[in-house]
Amino acid sequence: MTDARSKALAYAKEHRGQFLTELKDLVAIPSISADPKNKQDMHKAADWLVAKLKSLGFQNLQTLDTGGHPMVYGDLLTAGKDAPTVLIYGHYDVQPIDPIELWDTPPFEATEKNGMLYGRGSSDMKGQVIASIAAVESALKAGSLPVNVKWMIEGEEETGSPTMAQFLKKHQQLFQSDFALNPDAGMLSPTEPTITYGLRGLAYFEIHITGPAMDLHSGFYGGTVRNPANELARLIGGMQDKDGHINLPGFYDKVRELDDEERADFKRLPQGDDFYKEQTGVKQLWGESGFTAYERATSRPTLDVNGLLSGYVGEGPKTVLPAKAMAKLSMRLVADQDPHEVRKQLEQYMKENAHPAVTYEVKFISDAIPSISERDSLAIKAMAKAQETVWGVKPIFRREGGSVPVVGHLQGLGIEAVNVGSGLPDDLLHSPNEHLKLPVWEKEIDAMIHFIYNLVEKA
Amino acid sequence: MTDARSKALAYAKEHRGQFLTELKDLVAIPSISADPKNKQDMHKAADWLVAKLKSLGFQNLQTLDTGGHPMVYGDLLTAGKDAPTVLIYGHYDVQPIDPIELWDTPPFEATEKNGMLYGRGSSDMKGQVIASIAAVESALKAGSLPVNVKWMIEGEEETGSPTMAQFLKKHQQLFQSDFALNPDAGMLSPTEPTITYGLRGLAYFEIHITGPAMDLHSGFYGGTVRNPANELARLIGGMQDKDGHINLPGFYDKVRELDDEERADFKRLPQGDDFYKEQTGVKQLWGESGFTAYERATSRPTLDVNGLLSGYVGEGPKTVLPAKAMAKLSMRLVADQDPHEVRKQLEQYMKENAHPAVTYEVKFISDAIPSISERDSLAIKAMAKAQETVWGVKPIFRREGGSVPVVGHLQGLGIEAVNVGSGLPDDLLHSPNEHLKLPVWEKEIDAMIHFIYNLVEKA
Repeated sequence: MTDARSKALAYAKEHRGQFLTELKDLVAIPSISADPKNKQDMHKAADWLVAKLKSLGFQNLQTLDTGGHPMVYGDLLTAGKDAPTVLIYGHYDVQPIDPIELWDTPPFEATEKNGMLYGRGSSDMKGQVIASIAAVESALKAGSLPVNVKWMIEGEEETGSPTMAQFLKKHQQLFQSDFALNPDAGMLSPTEPTITYGLRGLAYFEIHITGPAMDLHSGFYGGTVRNPANELARLIGGMQDKDGHINLPGFYDKVRELDDEERADFKRLPQGDDFYKEQTGVKQLWGESGFTAYERATSRPTLDVNGLLSGYVGEGPKTVLPAKAMAKLSMRLVADQDPHEVRKQLEQYMKENAHPAVTYEVKFISDAIPSISERDSLAIKAMAKAQETVWGVKPIFRREGGSVPVVGHLQGLGIEAVNVGSGLPDDLLHSPNEHLKLPVWEKEIDAMIHFIYNLVEKA
Repeated sequence: MTDARSKALAYAKEHRGQFLTELKDLVAIPSISADPKNKQDMHKAADWLVAKLKSLGFQNLQTLDTGGHPMVYGDLLTAGKDAPTVLIYGHYDVQPIDPIELWDTPPFEATEKNGMLYGRGSSDMKGQVIASIAAVESALKAGSLPVNVKWMIEGEEETGSPTMAQFLKKHQQLFQSDFALNPDAGMLSPTEPTITYGLRGLAYFEIHITGPAMDLHSGFYGGTVRNPANELARLIGGMQDKDGHINLPGFYDKVRELDDEERADFKRLPQGDDFYKEQTGVKQLWGESGFTAYERATSRPTLDVNGLLSGYVGEGPKTVLPAKAMAKLSMRLVADQDPHEVRKQLEQYMKENAHPAVTYEVKFISDAIPSISERDSLAIKAMAKAQETVWGVKPIFRREGGSVPVVGHLQGLGIEAVNVGSGLPDDLLHSPNEHLKLPVWEKEIDAMIHFIYNLVEKA
């Protein structure tokens, strides 16, 4: 072990009390992004971070205007051109605290109990933000940072990062990095370090079909005009086979297939088919043949109707032939699909299949870029080795089925993310009595220190 | 012309003033069936009819309890067993009068103006009820009724005859007749006598599809469970070809095909394809090939979605995988389809096609029996000849695409209806300034007198 690495680890060990105090200070700021009443608290939390990073010598510190809550930026690019530049992501905003009566301790007074730290944001993700700052501080105090670091700590993650896409487009140059470290992705269990290397993307649409100029009496006109609700059903029905294969033209052309290593790794995961049956309450699972439920949920694209509305939906019969019909429809995407290409595929499908007796409109409502981090990249290998060093076991590689907007946006800029964290499935994120398991959090700090040195030192 | 017929026609001519006075008296009773405030007026109108029929010597007069507004019954079966028994249908209830400010004359003070009688119910259908009573009175005064007559005059037509099915089931024996005369069906124009010999039936369903036990996050679970909205769309999409052919098993087995005579008759009708385009505002009509729009709208069965609901239908994206999905779906039926057989066909289709990963329920919401009156039956031929005698042209034979509940219910009892009337398309039925064109009304009285005699006299 190099001298610097040892010193950094020793510093971290000695300063755990300080890190914990800092975490408590940050938790004490009620930075609930969803509540307009907490607008000033958002600035307070952002300013707290700026002050902390300033004390460590970070430069170009600023709270950038996003249109929503401010984004904290700062950098230290003293490692030189040949050293990698790591963008460290975080968010300082937290979820609301309702129902307040179910909290055993005050949500904004971080409270230690049985090796846990209770408080809103302790795990999601002020604890992770402090851990990453602690790791960087430890390296700095041990001598110097061997890598260049940029911070990107947002205040809108819990409201879906609505301004992120525009913001990143505008500040693309500022955030350019070799890869990102995102400690918001959690781990499977206290003894199973985890790297989330894939997230699905999203393409979300509304399809509007219009037939006659007004609702018609189905007795007088049924059989003479195309019913837009029937047409919508027929079109959606044809988009996908009974067993899940999606029929949009070219939909699978860019889908990156799972490799044998990934599928072998997935076997270590606890989410077997029984897990999905229990969580959803279905009598029988469903989906593309040849894949496990976990694989289908995380590594295969989907096409789901999210909403349907047409005609009369109240009590009893009304013999209306509706003038229009609407579906909300979204595809979860996997690398290397592109939401904008999927839009074209859907439009092509509609053009080829919609009956000329109706008119249709396809509205593109929202999108997220699917992301994948190459498991043999410098950053992922550095993190895997760091986790193995700290936990004594190789990390679990997993993909997730949802989308993390910022990870997708970064992927869109060519910045792959290392998604980790000490958050645990039973930390009660978003619920009363949210807490952080402190021994795991301390391991995560150590792992991040190793990660920093692994990036520049030979294994 | 027989002596009795001539006498009856002469009587009618002499008593037109009396008939018109009676119609004004009946219009003066505001028998709005939809408004609970007019409950007593319903009884008043029914009692008025009972008194009038009593004065003509009708027997077994009564106002029968339907659960809703009373049904007027009376009969005169003195023509003997060999003479046909005619059930004369009518309704004494009327539509509400809103918006009252648009009436030029008081709606319940029948007012003559330019050969029209203005007032609510003048055309729909108090005028028709008085006309049929006038025809029967004329025959009686000319000597005796050559046919047996039963009256069935309801007070709930304008609210959809909700109690009729149960009522007729209970009183089946009382109303048994050889055929029915229904003067509520109107005519195409003052110079085109019309016989409506076919009405479509209805089978109305709700289909409920249930998937997971609760709404799911489409990112976490998409691809593992069958989405009930996708499944509903696929199932509905498969029920019908793009161009209208319905794929329920056995759906067309009993459909009575149009014959050449019918199709030739339809060519006389003003409802060409342009009519349907104009009325519906579509750019292109749609439906089964080989049929005109009029034929598809009146003489072919349909399958129309009347309502669709699933998941999230508000603004913006919500990535929900819904727990359930619902469609309202109805088929317009033609002779000799049976709504209960169609129910079995739909259930069979669902059984054969629904994915086993979802559960479904088919709810039977309402039904109406399709009706057809044989054009070479005694009654239709008698009416056709009567109209030709009065108007000097052969009547137009038409079918209609909607359902008239009472006609369907009677068809269910084996009683075919002769659907006629002096109501015209521009009489403003259900609107302010409803009116009856008196010269046409007088012709209709004469035609009904001829009809009565044609039933028993050789052509």
